[in-house]
Formats: sequence, C-alpha cells, structure tokens
Amino acid sequence: MEEMASVKEEILALLEEKRYKELRLKLSDMMEVDIASIMDSMENEDSLKIFRILPKAMAADVFAELEVDDQKYIIMSLSTNEASNIIDNLMADDAADFLEEMPANVVKRILANASPEQRKDVNHLLKYPDDSAGSIMTVEYVDLKRDMTVADAILRIREIGLDAETTNICYVLDRKRLLVGTVALRYLLIRQPDEIIGDIMNDNVISIKTTDDQEEATRLFQKYDFTAMPVVDNEDRLVGIITVDDVMDIMEEEATEDIEKMAAIIPDQTDRPYLKIGILETFKSRMPWLLFLMVSATFTGAIITRYTEALSNFVILTAYIPMLMDTGGNAGSQASVSIIRGLSLREIQFGDFFKVLWKEIRVATICGTVLSSANFVKLILLDKLPVHIAGIICITLVLVVIFAKSIGCTLPMVAAKIKLDPAVMASPLITTIVDAVSLLIYFALATHFLSIAL
Amino acid sequence: MEEMASVKEEILALLEEKRYKELRLKLSDMMEVDIASIMDSMENEDSLKIFRILPKAMAADVFAELEVDDQKYIIMSLSTNEASNIIDNLMADDAADFLEEMPANVVKRILANASPEQRKDVNHLLKYPDDSAGSIMTVEYVDLKRDMTVADAILRIREIGLDAETTNICYVLDRKRLLVGTVALRYLLIRQPDEIIGDIMNDNVISIKTTDDQEEATRLFQKYDFTAMPVVDNEDRLVGIITVDDVMDIMEEEATEDIEKMAAIIPDQTDRPYLKIGILETFKSRMPWLLFLMVSATFTGAIITRYTEALSNFVILTAYIPMLMDTGGNAGSQASVSIIRGLSLREIQFGDFFKVLWKEIRVATICGTVLSSANFVKLILLDKLPVHIAGIICITLVLVVIFAKSIGCTLPMVAAKIKLDPAVMASPLITTIVDAVSLLIYFALATHFLSIAL
Repeated sequence: MEEMASVKEEILALLEEKRYKELRLKLSDMMEVDIASIMDSMENEDSLKIFRILPKAMAADVFAELEVDDQKYIIMSLSTNEASNIIDNLMADDAADFLEEMPANVVKRILANASPEQRKDVNHLLKYPDDSAGSIMTVEYVDLKRDMTVADAILRIREIGLDAETTNICYVLDRKRLLVGTVALRYLLIRQPDEIIGDIMNDNVISIKTTDDQEEATRLFQKYDFTAMPVVDNEDRLVGIITVDDVMDIMEEEATEDIEKMAAIIPDQTDRPYLKIGILETFKSRMPWLLFLMVSATFTGAIITRYTEALSNFVILTAYIPMLMDTGGNAGSQASVSIIRGLSLREIQFGDFFKVLWKEIRVATICGTVLSSANFVKLILLDKLPVHIAGIICITLVLVVIFAKSIGCTLPMVAAKIKLDPAVMASPLITTIVDAVSLLIYFALATHFLSIAL
Repeated sequence: MEEMASVKEEILALLEEKRYKELRLKLSDMMEVDIASIMDSMENEDSLKIFRILPKAMAADVFAELEVDDQKYIIMSLSTNEASNIIDNLMADDAADFLEEMPANVVKRILANASPEQRKDVNHLLKYPDDSAGSIMTVEYVDLKRDMTVADAILRIREIGLDAETTNICYVLDRKRLLVGTVALRYLLIRQPDEIIGDIMNDNVISIKTTDDQEEATRLFQKYDFTAMPVVDNEDRLVGIITVDDVMDIMEEEATEDIEKMAAIIPDQTDRPYLKIGILETFKSRMPWLLFLMVSATFTGAIITRYTEALSNFVILTAYIPMLMDTGGNAGSQASVSIIRGLSLREIQFGDFFKVLWKEIRVATICGTVLSSANFVKLILLDKLPVHIAGIICITLVLVVIFAKSIGCTLPMVAAKIKLDPAVMASPLITTIVDAVSLLIYFALATHFLSIAL
C-alpha cells in the first residue's frame, strides 16, 4: 500500500516535469492493474495524460481495469477513432461490460467505428440477460476439430492462441460446432505430433447453457475445480467460455449482496466500492427496509400500549423488555443467518426442513436454559426480585429463544421453497417478528401468573 | 440433483446384485467429485465397498473429495499398506489436509509406510501455521532453469508434467532456487525449440511468502486474475504454488466466517456443513455472544428502571420504545455491515475514517428526517398524540438514526485500526449500544420538554 503511494508520487513528479520518456519506461515495467488503480486515484486530467503516454500494447488492458467513471472520462476525451481503437483491443467481454455502463449515443458511435468482427462479438455478448452465464462469458477461445492431429492443433493455437483469454484448455467441436470434448494444453505438449485429437480428448465435458444463472456457473466451478468452462446454446453448440477470474468476482459480489440483504440493505447493482456510491443512492438503498421495519415495530408498540395500563402495578416488568427482545432477536439472527448461508452454499435443501427445525429446537432449548439460569441468579441476587417475578421473566426467556430460533430457521427455508430470496428473511425481519411475539409471551405469562385482569 | 439421486439408486442396485463389473464400468465414466458426494450420502459399509471397486487410478482422487468422517472410516478399514498407497497417490496438499484431521497414531502409521518422497512433502506442508499461505500451497509444480532451451523445457514437462497439480505456468529458477521468472505453457508451444527460457520468460513475478496470511493470497489472486501463484521462503526460494481452486474455497470460507461473526456466532473452524455439526458444538458457537449481549442489555433495562417512575404519568411514551430501539438497531447494522464488508474487500482503509463518518452522518440525516416525517404524520393522525409528545418522539428518532449510523461506521474502523476483527463489531453489538443510547436520548428529551423532575 505504502509502496503504491510512493510510486504514485514518482509518476506525478515525472508528469509535472514533462519527463515523458522516463515515465513511459517506468509504466511499461508495471502491472496494468496497478497502473489503473493509481490512475483511479488521480485527477481526471492527469489520468488522461498518463493514458496517452502508455505504451500502445498496454493501453487496452489498463483501460479494462479502470473504474467506470474514469473510463467514461477517457473515452469522451478521445477522438471517435482513438476510442474505437481501444475498444477493438479490449477482450470482447471487457468491451461489452464497459459499453453496458455507457450512454446509448456513445455506444452507438463507438460500435459504428469498431472492426466488424469486434462489433459482432460485443453485440452477441450484450444480448444476454444480466446475471446469466452468457453475460459473463468471453467469446475468445481455442476450438479444435476432432479429426485434427496434435501437430494441426499446435498450428491452430499458434495462429489464434495468444489472442484467446485462456488457451490452457482447447475445445473440440464436430462439424455442426457441437462440443464433443476438451484437450488440456499440456497433453498437446507431451503427445506425439501425429496422434488424432479425437483419440486423446476428454469426452466427459461439463458445460453450462447461456441462459443459466451465473450462480450455477460458480457452483460448478467450485465443485469441479475448473479454471475455465464451456458455455453452449440450446442446441449444444459452443458459443463461449467462462474463466475463473470472472467467477471469483461473481462469488465476491454474490457474498456482498447476501450480506447486504441480511442487513436490510438493497444491494447496489453496479458493484461500486462504498466510497464511490453517492449519498442519495446510499439513502435509497437503505430507506425502504428502515421504513418498513419501523412501521412493523408499531405492532410491538401497540402490544405494549394494550398492556401498560394493566401492568401499571408491575412497572418493574418493563425494565426487562429490552433484554428479552434483544436476546430473542440475537438468537433468531444466529439461526436465520446459519440457514441462509447453508442454503446459498447448497449445504441445505428444503427437504431437510424437519431435520433443521429439530436441530434448532434442541440448540434453542439448551441455549435458553443456560441463559435463563444465569439470569435467574442475577435477578434474585442482584436485582432482588421476588421469586415469582424472576420466574416469569426466565420462563419467558426460554420460550422466546425457542420461538426465535424456530422462526429464524423456518422463514428462510420457506422463502427458498417459494422462490423468494432467503437472505431477505434475515436478522431485521426476524427481530421485528420476535420482538412482537416476545412481548405477547411475556405479557401473557405475567397476566396469567400475576392474576392481572385485562 | 434429481439426476444424482437416480444414479445413486442405480449404483446401490448394482451393488446389491453384486454386478461389480458393470458397477466399475459405470463408476469409471463418472466425475470423481460426484462419486464422492454419492458415497458421502451412503451407509459407511456401502461406501467402503464402492471404494474397493473403484478403478485404481480414480481411488485417490475420489478419496480426496470425501468428507472427513468417510475418509476416516475408509482409512481405518484398509490395511496399513493399502492406506499408505492411497496417501502416496494423493497430491501432497490433499494428503496434508487429510492427515491434519486424523488422530496422531493413524498419521504416524500411515506416514511411516508412505514413500520417502511423499513423506517429505507432506511433513513440509504440515509444519506451516493454519491460515498461512504455506498451509494451502502444493509442492507439485514444474520448475525450469533459466538456461534451458524451449525443447529442454518440453522434455522436462513430459518427465514430471502430468503429476503436477498445475502445469499451465512453469517457474524459472536460478542456481540457488531463487524464483526469477515464469513461462506460460502456451508460450512453449508457439516458440522455436532452440529459444532460451531466460529470454522468453516473464521476469515481473508476483509471489507470496509461506508465512503470509492466506487472505493476502486471495487478495492477490483477485487483483491480478491469477490461476496459480508462487510461494517463496524468506530467502525468496520457491517452495510451492497456490492454485486458484484452493483460493476459491478460502474465499467462500472467509465470507462464511464474516457472515457468522456479524450474526454473533463464533465460526466453526472445521468448515463442515450445517447439518454435520453436532447440537453441542452449535450451542458452544452461539452461547458466548448470546450471554454477553444479554448481560449488556441489562444496562438498557437499568435505564428504563431509572426513568419508569418519573414517567409514570406519561406511560404512553413506553409504547414507542421498541420502534425507536429497532429503527436505531437497523440503521446502525446497515452502516456497520457496509463498512465491515468494505474493509474486508479493502475498498476502505482507516485513512478514510472522516470521509466515511461524514458520508454516514449525511445519509443518516436524510434517513432520519424522512422516517421522522412519516412517523409524525402517523402519530398525529392515527395515534392522535398531542403535538409536543409526537415532536419528542420524532426528534429522538432523528438523533437515534444519526447516532446509530455514526457508531455503526466508527466501531468497525477503530477495530480494524487496533487489529481486532471488524466483523465482531456488527449488528448485535451495535444494536445493544444503540438501544441504551436511544433510551437515554429519549428520556433526556422527555424529561426536559415535559418538565419532569427526576
């Protein structure tokens, strides 16, 4: 981190003093992603200057790593020809990602000037729905024919290989472009030149359809330890591949989205870092659930109102409301979060419902009993409550914990069953439900045992 | 999923009818990880039978994919020689992972019978601390010398290549085994046989130390889109590589741990799925925080006790306590979770503290104002409260939201600064603090404006 800061200083100094030749030499020794992150942290004008100084061969790769705002600034500052040149040199999937973020008129202008081949690839990628396997694939890969020899295959890789995002696995197609097998690059190295691809290929290929969800792709990558995976259309023809670096990004995004949903935040779809999201956008992502939960908490308030009069002789009971509600909320969150994570990692299915519920009830009974015992001692010794009042509080506590953990595991599983997002059934919603129910249990027990008439 | 269930039926039927030849043929057509997941769901004895029927070449790979309990059962049922044979055929890192989970006497017996080479590799891997880069690396890779020709390199890959977990990138060493460069396999294919490795290698190598944290490795993989990464010792000598499949597993584990910590659960270190973890273990992972938070909620109770008497003429105020506490808790969770995730993705540093705080205060002011306005209308029109009481509730609400979001972003950042885990500063702890402070603000305003003497 500190190293990067000093590199940035050095670059700015060279720029200031117009020592462009040295600057270009310095940049050509750096990794593209590091240059991009330094450019992201600069003023727009400086960043544009750096971009123009960059060796041609690096420009497109650095551009692909920039943040959207910087990309927009640079592309607007270049001539249409220069811009189209950059797009031509991007991988087709990077170009499609970038164009998705640009205003429609810019896209039109750039695509009109891009090479026909690149235009075709990018248009192809742009038509797949968000979050589909098709939307994250690249169309650059090495395809071989089944009747090629190893020597033919090596020739073909020499011809197209270095342009492909990954050549470590080659895909074998039949005459109808149906995917029939794969060959790892290392097999080509160690086989004889006259062996036939069809004989040495692995014909047990796992592929995914363009329209499948990208989460399905990440699941398969993890299960089979892939570094790349073929994507086919409905007729099983190869149309692209997904590479592991994109899958890692998706895993991270999906985890972030789950975490945000669990905290009553509506996830930002653009995956920008926290500090790049505007105040109003953050407000919009947080407001809906806050408002909904505030209104729901009104019911809890209504319960208190209904009982307060009856309980006016036992105001001491009010003092334990926060403890009961908080403990219930926490116990429920623990269960719901465990289940939501288990569902999203496919460790739990809906068919496990009763197993899960039974487990949570047993855990809750132990947790509730231990918490109540500790609490009872405290209520008697420290708070000096009469035994029957302490008893009511502690019995409520056990029941609240059992209820909280039961509802905490039930709601996410039911949500998954009816195709809702389980992550939404997390802490905040559970807490609100548990709050209301805790109070009902508390007051029901109190009125019953203290013989209060309502 | 359903497909797997029918495959399992078929396998069990073949086993029942002792049609072992067909069974072996069937198995040899399947992916190792699928066989393992079917075996995991079977009775131990059936699973062992399947294992003995497996083609020899597949046995070690299937074994590596089994769950720990099944591995243990199988290894205990095999003769020491058979067991050592399996271990010999495992990748060294898989063997080390497995042996870490076994009782010491079993490890001793198996290692004593394994090949000296494998024993050395495994012992080497076993000595690195948990969660270090060394503990997740494999020692099987292709190393080349700087002065080899491309033809020499291909010969060397033929010799050792297929045994290596990944050969897509070869590592170039000097005479002291210092790492001086890398060559992608595809370059060897397209270069002339007499070119020198030292001339075509990439000498801008990014590596990690054995003692570095594994999270640092995942960060580098994501930043640079690696599929493998070299691990060096303190003298910069190459000792192993980390592959992307292991990094994906770690990313998933780290996300799960963060999510669990945020929900006041102490993460399970064995990374077993939810249903495989015993009731008592689940209890132990959930109890400490529940107890701590319950005790903390006592302070909130004490605040209520202190004010209840003074407020006995205004019991109606009690009805709005849950709404204020819940909204504060939710607002605080939103902020803390956003910041914790940002910290763990390195989108936020401690240096951004004031930027973050200023952003949260502005967001909180807008959220609080909107919530209060909605609430004010409801309090006047629906609850028919006098304006000054509604006013007190709504002013409290704004202040609570601002306080909650400020503390929600401050605590995780301070935790990160003093090298505590920020994830622990999530919803439950924030909620408890916000609850107490909300009440203090509420009662302070109430006593002031309603002129209640304490």
